[in-house]
Amino acid sequence: MANLLKGKDVALEIINRSKEVVEKNNIRPCLAIFRLGEKDNDLSYERGIEKKASEVGLEIRKYIFKEDVDEEAFYQKLDEANSDVNIHGILIFRPFPKRFDDAKLRNYIATEKDVDGCGDGSLAGLLTNSEKGFAPATAKAAIEILDYYNVDVSGKSVVVLGRSLVIGKPVSLLLLNKNATVTICHSKTKDIEKIASNSDILICATGQMESIDKTYTNPNQTIIDVGISWNQEKGKLCGDVQFEEVEPLVKNITPVPGGVGSVTTAVLINNVVTACIRNKK
Amino acid sequence: MANLLKGKDVALEIINRSKEVVEKNNIRPCLAIFRLGEKDNDLSYERGIEKKASEVGLEIRKYIFKEDVDEEAFYQKLDEANSDVNIHGILIFRPFPKRFDDAKLRNYIATEKDVDGCGDGSLAGLLTNSEKGFAPATAKAAIEILDYYNVDVSGKSVVVLGRSLVIGKPVSLLLLNKNATVTICHSKTKDIEKIASNSDILICATGQMESIDKTYTNPNQTIIDVGISWNQEKGKLCGDVQFEEVEPLVKNITPVPGGVGSVTTAVLINNVVTACIRNKK
Repeated sequence: MANLLKGKDVALEIINRSKEVVEKNNIRPCLAIFRLGEKDNDLSYERGIEKKASEVGLEIRKYIFKEDVDEEAFYQKLDEANSDVNIHGILIFRPFPKRFDDAKLRNYIATEKDVDGCGDGSLAGLLTNSEKGFAPATAKAAIEILDYYNVDVSGKSVVVLGRSLVIGKPVSLLLLNKNATVTICHSKTKDIEKIASNSDILICATGQMESIDKTYTNPNQTIIDVGISWNQEKGKLCGDVQFEEVEPLVKNITPVPGGVGSVTTAVLINNVVTACIRNKK
Repeated sequence: MANLLKGKDVALEIINRSKEVVEKNNIRPCLAIFRLGEKDNDLSYERGIEKKASEVGLEIRKYIFKEDVDEEAFYQKLDEANSDVNIHGILIFRPFPKRFDDAKLRNYIATEKDVDGCGDGSLAGLLTNSEKGFAPATAKAAIEILDYYNVDVSGKSVVVLGRSLVIGKPVSLLLLNKNATVTICHSKTKDIEKIASNSDILICATGQMESIDKTYTNPNQTIIDVGISWNQEKGKLCGDVQFEEVEPLVKNITPVPGGVGSVTTAVLINNVVTACIRNKK
């Protein structure tokens, strides 16, 4: 039986830490949310953010547009948020309709307000290990879980499955900055089970539901499952890992749901607080 | 006896390729070099660039300053080069004296002219695998050698020793973009010899002269030695690898000197040509 690395306690600690900073510094951090239309996923994430924001004392400003919004009108509002000194973080619910250039969109946010780490400034900051911009919230959430449960990564063999711009690459760089020995695997990797099963820590971010079975594991392993998909057959949310098979065989594992996903929103909130503090300096 | 992956032939191919593009498109690419003082290393690199530039039909403009140059005067010239439409690439011989902020300096070059890949725009381009900016020339040189000698990296296990911003991290991302399975090792890595000796390809960029011995190797391995240091005792240039010991035991290896270093200048020249072509589009 593995130790369950539950996200709830980690999120609570981050929220308390954020609240303390807000109160101690007597600040009013503000997050601007840019949303197009009324997609279920967006609305659910937005509600989660609003709930945690109210616990911390964070202001939320919503910029809501119709799906067919004029591009110029949209960017004008984004310009306003970029230059508004009372807004410290900006979050855009991507993906956007295809007529928007995604590279332009993600780079439009001022780097110091890029609290979900989507722009080039934030990405470069990951490579230079500087405090320029932010890491993507989900990538940072994986690190927060390891930190909270005292899973030391320094000098350890960490295998990352997946090389996306939102998880695989940024979490690899965050781990490297914490002195882990990082191996990045992907769909073209040969002997992936062998490589994975030799790791101390396995970060699963393939986006392939229940694709990681016992052949990827060893008894001393910590598994962080970043995946989250709806399993039609089982009628529930599942991660990248075949949880029932893998859980009894490893040392530590995050559940899905209730793992990384539940920490992401707290990280985002904390990033807004950090942006506000950096701005004061 | 290993196959020697000599840089000379690779450099020649890159220079010929660059020359062909220049002639076919009837362009006059121009590189601006910014140098402070008269350091031996800088002057030697500059001569190498000038020689290859003349072969390709590349113009070189030199901006030479005294070591104690006024910062404002320096940046004014850099501004001019950034906005001059007839200059396509800019190279600054760093490191600069400490009164210069290195982050400001490396980010001051317009990304589209950043032919040695030192700015955040170029670094982010490595992560997004886009044609924004350029990879650092030495990192790209390692890739050019593998390409020239048909060492396939896709799906292969590549171990990178070193995590610097000029070699380790960028070469890892370039290899990842070519579908290699990349492991990044460094001074904190445990069992580094075991990890290295299990690799198909080993990129040595530790900067520790002759630190890589036979315990890092296997008979099917390709070794790219990025290191270059002056060995006082032997009275010659040496790489990160104990060449005499390692060379008989592996499949392919780059010599030092005459390996990666001899390709770097050609890559830089080719980047200026590419910058000029991109600018025309």
